[in-house]
Parts: sequence; structure tokens; C-alpha cells
Amino acid sequence: MRILFANPNTTTAVTDRIAAVARGAASPGTEVVAVTAPYGVPYIATRAEAVIGGRVALELLAEHSPGCDAAVIAAFADPGIGGARELFPIPVIGMAEAAMLTACMLGRRFSIVTFATAMEPWYRECVDYNGLGGRLASIRCVPGGFRDINSVAEEKSDELVAACCAAVEQDQADVVILGGAPLAGLASVVAERVPVPLVDGVAAAMRQAEVLAALRPRKATAGTFRTPDAKPVTGVPAALERLFTRR
Amino acid sequence: MRILFANPNTTTAVTDRIAAVARGAASPGTEVVAVTAPYGVPYIATRAEAVIGGRVALELLAEHSPGCDAAVIAAFADPGIGGARELFPIPVIGMAEAAMLTACMLGRRFSIVTFATAMEPWYRECVDYNGLGGRLASIRCVPGGFRDINSVAEEKSDELVAACCAAVEQDQADVVILGGAPLAGLASVVAERVPVPLVDGVAAAMRQAEVLAALRPRKATAGTFRTPDAKPVTGVPAALERLFTRR
Amino acid sequence: MRILFANPNTTTAVTDRIAAVARGAASPGTEVVAVTAPYGVPYIATRAEAVIGGRVALELLAEHSPGCDAAVIAAFADPGIGGARELFPIPVIGMAEAAMLTACMLGRRFSIVTFATAMEPWYRECVDYNGLGGRLASIRCVPGGFRDINSVAEEKSDELVAACCAAVEQDQADVVILGGAPLAGLASVVAERVPVPLVDGVAAAMRQAEVLAALRPRKATAGTFRTPDAKPVTGVPAALERLFTRR
Amino acid sequence: MRILFANPNTTTAVTDRIAAVARGAASPGTEVVAVTAPYGVPYIATRAEAVIGGRVALELLAEHSPGCDAAVIAAFADPGIGGARELFPIPVIGMAEAAMLTACMLGRRFSIVTFATAMEPWYRECVDYNGLGGRLASIRCVPGGFRDINSVAEEKSDELVAACCAAVEQDQADVVILGGAPLAGLASVVAERVPVPLVDGVAAAMRQAEVLAALRPRKATAGTFRTPDAKPVTGVPAALERLFTRR
Amino acid sequence: MRILFANPNTTTAVTDRIAAVARGAASPGTEVVAVTAPYGVPYIATRAEAVIGGRVALELLAEHSPGCDAAVIAAFADPGIGGARELFPIPVIGMAEAAMLTACMLGRRFSIVTFATAMEPWYRECVDYNGLGGRLASIRCVPGGFRDINSVAEEKSDELVAACCAAVEQDQADVVILGGAPLAGLASVVAERVPVPLVDGVAAAMRQAEVLAALRPRKATAGTFRTPDAKPVTGVPAALERLFTRR
Amino acid sequence: MRILFANPNTTTAVTDRIAAVARGAASPGTEVVAVTAPYGVPYIATRAEAVIGGRVALELLAEHSPGCDAAVIAAFADPGIGGARELFPIPVIGMAEAAMLTACMLGRRFSIVTFATAMEPWYRECVDYNGLGGRLASIRCVPGGFRDINSVAEEKSDELVAACCAAVEQDQADVVILGGAPLAGLASVVAERVPVPLVDGVAAAMRQAEVLAALRPRKATAGTFRTPDAKPVTGVPAALERLFTRR
Repeated sequence: MRILFANPNTTTAVTDRIAAVARGAASPGTEVVAVTAPYGVPYIATRAEAVIGGRVALELLAEHSPGCDAAVIAAFADPGIGGARELFPIPVIGMAEAAMLTACMLGRRFSIVTFATAMEPWYRECVDYNGLGGRLASIRCVPGGFRDINSVAEEKSDELVAACCAAVEQDQADVVILGGAPLAGLASVVAERVPVPLVDGVAAAMRQAEVLAALRPRKATAGTFRTPDAKPVTGVPAALERLFTRR
Repeated sequence: MRILFANPNTTTAVTDRIAAVARGAASPGTEVVAVTAPYGVPYIATRAEAVIGGRVALELLAEHSPGCDAAVIAAFADPGIGGARELFPIPVIGMAEAAMLTACMLGRRFSIVTFATAMEPWYRECVDYNGLGGRLASIRCVPGGFRDINSVAEEKSDELVAACCAAVEQDQADVVILGGAPLAGLASVVAERVPVPLVDGVAAAMRQAEVLAALRPRKATAGTFRTPDAKPVTGVPAALERLFTRR
Repeated sequence: MRILFANPNTTTAVTDRIAAVARGAASPGTEVVAVTAPYGVPYIATRAEAVIGGRVALELLAEHSPGCDAAVIAAFADPGIGGARELFPIPVIGMAEAAMLTACMLGRRFSIVTFATAMEPWYRECVDYNGLGGRLASIRCVPGGFRDINSVAEEKSDELVAACCAAVEQDQADVVILGGAPLAGLASVVAERVPVPLVDGVAAAMRQAEVLAALRPRKATAGTFRTPDAKPVTGVPAALERLFTRR
Repeated sequence: MRILFANPNTTTAVTDRIAAVARGAASPGTEVVAVTAPYGVPYIATRAEAVIGGRVALELLAEHSPGCDAAVIAAFADPGIGGARELFPIPVIGMAEAAMLTACMLGRRFSIVTFATAMEPWYRECVDYNGLGGRLASIRCVPGGFRDINSVAEEKSDELVAACCAAVEQDQADVVILGGAPLAGLASVVAERVPVPLVDGVAAAMRQAEVLAALRPRKATAGTFRTPDAKPVTGVPAALERLFTRR
Repeated sequence: MRILFANPNTTTAVTDRIAAVARGAASPGTEVVAVTAPYGVPYIATRAEAVIGGRVALELLAEHSPGCDAAVIAAFADPGIGGARELFPIPVIGMAEAAMLTACMLGRRFSIVTFATAMEPWYRECVDYNGLGGRLASIRCVPGGFRDINSVAEEKSDELVAACCAAVEQDQADVVILGGAPLAGLASVVAERVPVPLVDGVAAAMRQAEVLAALRPRKATAGTFRTPDAKPVTGVPAALERLFTRR
Repeated sequence: MRILFANPNTTTAVTDRIAAVARGAASPGTEVVAVTAPYGVPYIATRAEAVIGGRVALELLAEHSPGCDAAVIAAFADPGIGGARELFPIPVIGMAEAAMLTACMLGRRFSIVTFATAMEPWYRECVDYNGLGGRLASIRCVPGGFRDINSVAEEKSDELVAACCAAVEQDQADVVILGGAPLAGLASVVAERVPVPLVDGVAAAMRQAEVLAALRPRKATAGTFRTPDAKPVTGVPAALERLFTRR
């Protein structure tokens, strides 16, 4: 089984981190392919940046998904997920949706904890888009800047643990998601410091992608995720253009 | 990895069916343990029957879960799931919740199709309990009686396929769940006759149980699924009594 | 008119308390029959305990409801209510639903105040089950242990009054329900110490049971609360078995 | 016990009908006072007419509620109910809210059936105002005109029964409310022709008013239904003016 | 273009204030007609007072709307708006709805800030009536009395600005509405002291009334805002009576 | 006043149509600037195409908004609106949100009618994104292909009018929006053939953009639409890059 992780951010170190955590979480025999955005921002934090990221996610999937059994949009909040699910014949999931749906099996209400306040509105829109507002306890963001996106998990681990505990004690969370690809791997390190289950977005996405690949769902030919009708498109890379034009 | 399927119905032939489909869907190396209710009804179809089934589900889990890595309440609508999630140290999931959350990654709105009209109210309460009403397209039940609960999937397959197609065309479902343990295995047989992905409840539960077991979430010591305080209880089997009394 | 109060807990002193408050709230000529669970827990506080309580509630109703005009499941959060409403030909109501619906006629938003933090999740699921989340201001639980379930109302009365006042001042409650059968009778004692109407669960259930008995609604033969089809069942007391098997 | 029924319509024959049904539904010893709007429309059917009716309801209550233990705004959809609940020291309930909350104890979803299509929007706003949209199956109105508002119940009984049955079969109603004061009394006559419980708005309001009067809730001095601060007002009858000015 | 502002309060100084702010916000060539309630209360603050205000709003519109292209009910929370929209052939909007819908184009969640705590419940019901609860961040009311309704904006400006800032910082508002006609004009004065856009209710209503007048929507002859059927009415001024009777 | 209409589709004839209708709806003195996507699809109909359109909308706004007082994303469903509202100092609105919010002032429930079934899912997500699901009666799409995107309004006018009438009669719409830029101008032509108000998306957006420009809201420096922090970005045109990098 071969799973694509498409990082719509430009930071290859984060892609490496994603790949390492995904491989650690994968079943025996699963191969992980992890790719990085060729352009865009170092890490998406706002709605505006997500607009750029959604487009680049489609490009990455168009180029790298052939030969894969399922794909993950590896930025928490899942830029471009709806469009990707229409366009591609294999299952495509978002890291946030995978984490949230997994969390729903571990508790009644989940919180999302992350490392930058700028992300809160985009994350909240993602929760609403998934119709899971009734399951959300809170989104908690650690305030203040950080030195390096690739080591923010370690740099902020104490503040992140404190935010997780506050989510449990003050917001009545039954389970906490550590959101944001740069936090991949932290959940297993700090699990004993938080009194409820923690969900690692990358690990959850890895496993959920395997679930979907294993179930081998057919591509819809009806419903709202059927393959769109062919349409001419300009200004996009050839691999993506072929998907739109069906040629 | 060892996964328990607890069938809160008394029909062993349905348990056998569950076990066979679960084993077919499992990853290499996963062991399936499937057990049948020692008392109750042949198959749960109403809220009243689910009250009996919830209690027997706890008994089955108490007796058979030691040594397992995760457990599935193997009746669609998940009798006793909330209580089980409190009581047991391993992850416990319901067949309906596993199917619905899996379906959410395959489309925007899902329908549930089943073989008896009596089940609709109980299923609907289960959807609402999971906070997924906004993702539900419809619940469609094939009317009329059937000869044998263990072959109803084959007996009614044409009507069930027709109901799936109607869910897509008339109710705007993007994905359809075949609900009810007696329908286990049908989804893969009829997949090509329905124009959207089909979700098999047992296969989805099998795979989701593996996900949770692999993520090894800690047992909550806070939040609403922390282990309940010890309390004396009478009139229940010893294995269940020990869980309540913590002795 | 004869009203059954079925206490699904095993503490007879609480049943006595329920009976006394119910009789005090009843119309002239109404007879109160109050019965206690033959097995289970001293008082239900969690989802897991409610699974046991739902089953015993059905047993109590099966044995004692003949000859009664309406019945009350006399534990706040109403274990087994849906199943009971299906099975029995007379109206069956839950203490929580009776209290909440009564509260809705006294204000826009109600709070529920009770004596143990363990109860919060179970109560909240009950509010949601009734579709009344939009009318809920808060659930407030007095923290800490107590000496005796039968005198917790008196022991904790100051803390309970403080919680009621906090619900009004901080949570914008227009009316407060004192939840939990062990608190029966407290509302009338402390009414002047809380600046909004208080609802006593037992008194409300008593009066609402009279309302339904007086309206003499027919037993549904259609809709989701029609009598379930006959079905064989094993492992339950004879009175309950007869209801399932319709013999 | 003395219960006021304030009919905010000008048709005294309908008031007589209300009074007769209320008396038939009342407990022994309960006195019914029924009064008619001195001005306004023969029967309220639209939002615009309800604006007039809300004002006249306050006037009727101001003049006639002294000496009563509870009051009912006796037009389905409850014009002026929020303001009345603020102003008056006794419990005030609306006929629609009493019927809907009673229906909630008899089934999961209720339909409202009435005799004129003009009423649908106003009724729907009333359901929404009560936060009970999730419990509503449908509102069904019998189309076409009628000869006489006071005998419309008899004139249209076949169509009304057919609408009730359609609500059960097509809209999945568990219980049906016959809405509109002119339909008072019809439910008991046609009960056997509809396969689910029927709720008579006037009978339900009669009994619920007794419940509230019996519970003797204190008048709120906090929360959103506390007595409003005194304020000068002009252009209203003296009895109502005194309530606003607190003199 | 001629726009009517109907102030359902009796304070002519507030009407003057409304007229001045409306004229300042109007497009060149728009004429503003502002009229004051001939009876009622100095300023509506509660549900009970809104019942009086709704009736007087219809009277004002009946008398003064002929010759106007659109009308505004110039009290925040929009007493009588539903009825007015039925009765009149020109567009009628409420000050609160105009402000809220305008705010929705400036941010995701809006707060409403006003000068008296009594108004909170009535405002909240207005938000719910408009189905905009999901867009509401908070309603914040400045506590304490004030000297003069016509200068409360100036008297309380510091507290109002502080409440606006608290709504942004503590309630996550993206935009703040200054609610209540007596606050008309304040938004432009204090705009630089609040870090998000402020919406002035009167200015927004002025502009939105122009929008509707310019679009020249036809009067509905179907749907729930079609002109009601003619009906006799008594006890209302002649201009309003003619609208009900269609003579 | 100068208003930018950014058409994220590549069909210049549709841009011309938008410009003509916008100019017809504008106030005297308002200047309309209408620009066309330099790349992408002829008309956006699916989520995948909207991902491309969202990015090109930001590019168009970055290049053309300087000197404008407000901007409109001139494709129904508003690709990129959230990001645009963050990035730009002037008000930016979507054609769909402008139409829906305008419709809310003309009735309780609105329908959206358009010319291609492919658009339904994308439109529905837009309604949900705006939190207006409770105000939506239906989305109706005329089935079947069409000859030319620029004359589809005329080609399909009879079917579109029939869909509008069906929305009123079968879906209880009080007002109907003609969605999709290619339908601009149709509403005024067919207004008399539909029994409720029609809203033209372009005309509504034109007028609402004027409202916002006239209110001169400050750019937020707090809340979720504050200008994002500067961030490096690659692979986007210089004008857009400058907005992200704040240089």
C-alpha cells in the first residue's frame, strides 16, 4: 500500500518530519511518499495563505498521486480538500478531518491545540466545514512567536502541554488533537503529561488513509463527489490540466 | 493485535458472519475474537431491545475484553457505547459510529440503508447522539418481512441496492452505509451496482478498531470518559461487577 | 388516578423520599406507587451505571405498571425512557424530561444543579437527547463527596443554593432545576434563597404524569412509539418477557 | 385554583368553546375564567394580526388576572407571551407552548395540524421561538375556506383527520397537535381515527396551567423574566399602565 | 428616493437624532422622513414594551408610509417587523436586521453593544429570530443607569468603547454593532478607539433601505410575506384598519 | 466611488455582462471597474474549479483594487472571500453573500436558482459557510446542457422561471436569488413571472458594495480579519506577493 502525503507548505524540513511520523505510524508494508510544495508560504496560518495552499495541494496531488492508493493533504485545516475529493480517483483525506474523526471515537468533545494564534480562525472554519462544531470543546493556541517552524514542537512543548491540560480542565475536552504538521510526533512524547487521549494529526491521517485504501471504495459516478465534467483550463501545470480536461 | 467483536444479539450465525467479514477486512496479523450474547433478542431492532442489548454488551466486554487491544460493539446503533467507553481501559467503538465517521471521509452526506423499518428510530437516535445529523442524507429501510436474519442480506439484496440508489438520486447521498450486522459482507458484493462508495459497517469497524489500537491512546483520568469512581453493584455477572467495584 | 414511580436505584430511603415528595405534590385523589430497583447501584451517576439502570427500569415498569395510569422513571436523566415509551400502553415519562419541559414554561433558559460532578456528562446527554440544548443555560454540580445519599440534600443545601445563584448570575438562567431524586423536596425549602423559580424534579414529574394520565392519549399504533413487533427474548424476568413476546 | 383563559380574538363563540373544553379538562375544584378581546380580529392568522393580538393579550391579562393562579394566552402561537411572562406575577403560558411541551412527552417528533394555510408561517415562528424545531415533524394546514370560525372543527373534521394521518405516514410524526382555539374539543372526538396520540391545545394548556399554579413558582427577581423596571407609558388602558409604571 | 424612519418610542429627541444620522448617511437625493410614536414608552427595553412598540410601529407605517419607497422600524430589535413586511407594499426593514446583515459582510462574528442591561433578552430574541445565532459573538450591555436617553451615547461613550474592546478581545468579535437608536452617530465618533469595524444601526438601516428601494422588489403574491387576506378589525386607527380590511 | 468587480472566470463576455448590470444598478456617480481572470476556467462550477478561482480572485484584487473603495468577487459562491477579507484594506464582498443577505431582508427563506446542476454542492457549501442554512429554502438547478455561457440566461429563461416558481410553491421560498454571474440582468426581465421578489446577484452586490464603501469601515487590527502578519511567499504575481510580504 502506498500513501501520498502532500505538504502544501514550502518547508521541506516539515515534510521530513511528516514522513518520519507517518512511517512510524504506518502498518507493516505501507509505503509513504511525502512531497513538498514547490511554491507558496513556509507554513500556512491564515485563510489567505490557505487559498494559495489549496491550489498547490491540487498540483501536488496531480503530479504525485498516480500509483498511490490514497492521499493526505498534510496541512491541518485541509486546504483544497473538497476539490481534491472531486478530482481524484483515489481517496483523499485531510489531516484535520482525519484527526477530528479519530478523536470522535475517543471522546464526546475534542479540543485542538496548536502553536500560533493566527491559525484559530482557519481551524474553526475547518471544524464548521466538517459539521463537527457540536463536538468541539475549544481551539487553544499558544501565544507568542517561535524561533523555527521545524522545532516549534520542542520549543513550545511545555506551553502546548499546559494548553492541553487547560482544554481538559476548563473546556471539558475528552480528547485533545495536536494540530499543525510541525507538531507531528509530539503527542507520543507528551502523552503521559495530559490526562486524556492525545491525537497526533499525522499519525491519525496515516492510519485513516490506510483504512480508506483498504476499503477500496469505488470512485463516485453520482453524488457531489463524482468526477467533474471535463472543462478547459489554462494557467495550471500539465498534470493538473489533464485532470480538468480529462484528456 | 487482537480485536473483540461483541455481538449483543443472540444469533450465533450472525456472529459468524461478523467474524468472517472482520477477518477479511483485517490487516495481516490481526486476530478477531467474536462473541455472542448469552441472552436477549435474536437481533435488536427497537429502542426497547437496545436497552437489553446495552446491558448485555457490557457483560460481553467485561468477560471477553481482557487481552484484547480494542473492542467493537457489533450491533449497528451501538447499544451501551457510552458506558463501555467509560468502563474499559481499551478503546471501544460502535459499529455505527465507525461506519459513519468512515463515511464522512468519503463524502459530504451519507445515507444508511437497512433491511427492516423497525430500525429507523433507533438508528436516527444514534446519528443524533453522534452529533452527525448535519451529515445525514437519509435512513432508508427496505419494507416487508424476511425469512431468516442470517440470510436477509442475500434475500433482500435487490431491494437494498434499489434503496441505495434511491438514497443517491433522491436524497443526495454521496456515500451509503449498509447498516446492521446481518448485512456484513454485502457492500463488496454489490459495490458496482451503486454509483457512490458503499461502507460495510463490520469492515469499517474492523479497520477503525485497528486504528485506535495502533494509536495506543491512554485511558483518560479526566474528562467525561475517565474511569468512573468505584461503586457497589448487585445483580450483574462477576466480571462486570469487578469493573464497577474496581476490586 | 394511580401513578407509578420506578426508582432504578437500589436505595429504598431515596424511594421513600420520592414517594413523600410525590404525594405532597399530587392532586387530591391521586395515588402514588413507588418501587425500588431489586439490583443495580445505590444511585446512578454515570453512563455505565445508566446502562444497568435502563434495564432495571424496564423490569420495574413491567412488574408494577399494570393498574397504573401513568409511570415515571424516577432517576434524573431518564434511563430506558425511549424503550419504555415503546413497550408500555400507558404514558411513561422521565423525571428529567418532566422537569425540563416544565422549566421551559417558566423561563427561556434553565440550569440544572446537582450534588455530584460525576453526573454532568450523563445529564448533558439527556438534555441533548431531548433536543433542548438551545434552552440549557448550564449544568452545575457541587464538587466534593457527601456522607449519605439520602441526606445529601440537607448536607449540601448551602452549596446547592450557591450553585443555583451562580447559574442565575453567571450563566443567565431564568429558572433552575434541582436534579437528582435525592434532592427531592429541597426546592420548596430553599425557594426564597434563589431569585428565580426552582423546579423540583419529583414534583414536576408527579404533576406531568397526572397531565398525561388525564389527557388519556391513545397508545400509538403507528410512528416510532408504536408497540414493537413481538420478538422472542431470553434472560429477562417473566413480566418483561411477556411484553416483548406479546403473549 | 383559578385559571384565566385570555382569548386575544374577538369571537365570543370561540371563547365559549375554549371555556367548555377547558372546564372539561380541568381537575375537580379548578375554576375557569375565559375572556374575549374587546377589539382586534375575529381570529388571528398572520404575523400582522398577531401584533394586534399581542397587545390585546396584555390588556386582557392586566384586567382579568388579579385573583387568578395562572393564565393562558388562548390563541395558538401565543401572541405576547414573552412580554406577559415578564409583566405578571403569576405563571402565564401560551396554548401552543403548552401543547408542544406536552407532545414532547408523548413522542419524539410532533406535527401541528390546523384549518387554514394562512397560519403556517406564524406557527412556524412560534415553534422556532420555543427552540423546538428539532422536535417538529411538520405543520399541515387544511386548504380552502370555511363557513364559520366557530364550527370549522366540525365542518373540516374529515380533512383534519386526513391531515393528521398524513403527518404520521408521510412526515414521521409520533404525535399530532390540533392547533388553533377553534379546534378545541376535536381531539377527543376523532382520537380513534388517528393512529398516534392527539393533543388538544386547550386541554393541554388547562392542565399545564394547573401544573404551574400547583408548583407555585416564585416570581423571578433576576434573570430575563424578572419584573421590568418601572417606566412611564401612555395610550394603554389603566390596568396595563399600572403594570408598566408599578404604581 | 424617500425613506421613512418610524420610531416606535415616544421620545422626539431620539427621533431627531435618528433623522440627523440617517440624513448624514444617505445618498445624495434621498429624503428622510422621521416620525415618532404618538403613545407608548420613552424607549423600549423589554419584551413587554416591545409588544406595545410593535403595534405602534404598524400604526406609524400605516399613516406615514404612503409616498415612501422603503421604511425602517427605527428601534433596535425591530418590533413588529414580521407583520409590517406582510402588510405593506414597500420594503420594510428593521434597524437590528440591517445592522446585523451589514456586519456579516465585515466579519465572521459580530457583537452588539448597548447602554442598558434590560435590553439583552430582547436583543437576543431578535438575533435568534433572524437565524443569526451562529454569527453572534456576544451582546454586551453597559451596566448602571443613565441621566437622559437622548445623551446616553455621549454620557456612556467611554464605557461603550470599553465594552466594544472587550467584545473583540474576550468574545472574539470581528465587528461590533452599536445597538439602540439613542446610540446613533456614536460609531463614527469612536471608530478609531475600537480595533475592528463598528456598525451604526441607523446608518446601516439608511443604506440598506436605499438598497431595497433601488432594487424595486415586487410585492409578493405568494410565500409567507404575501399580502394577508382581507379581514375585519376593530380598535385600530383608520389608516391601519384600511390595510387589514383592504378597503 | 469606485467599485471593482473581479470575475475569477476567463470569459470576458460574462465580465461585460456583469459590468453592464452593475452599472445599471449603481448609484449616480459610482464607477464600475470590471476585470477578467487571466487564466483558469470559462466558468466555475465545482469545488475543484473554485480552488483555482479563489487563487485567481486574490491575484485580480491585488492588481486592480488600488484606487477602489470596495471590491466584489463576481462569481456566485465567492471563491477566496475569506482570504480576500483578511488581505485587503478595503471592503471585499462576495456576490453570493451580498445576494443572500439582501434576500434576508425580503423574506424568511430564500431559494437559489441557477442554470447547471454541477453548481449545487458548491453553492450549498457557500450557504453553510455563511451560517445561513436556516434561511435557505432550496437550491434548484435547471438540468441539461446549454449552448453558450454568455447567453444561457436567455436560452434557459423559461426553465429558470419555472424553477423559481417551483421554489415558491414546493419549497416555501419567500424570495428567490438568481445565482451565477451569467444570469446577471435576468431578474429584472422576468420579475413579473415569479410571485415573490427576485434578487439579481450582480445588482445586489453592486448596491451592497456601495453600502460598505459609504460606511467607510476601518480595517481591523484585531479579530480574525486583521491584516495577516507578513510572511514570505513564492510563486505568485508581484502585486499579490507584496500583500503577503507587506513590503
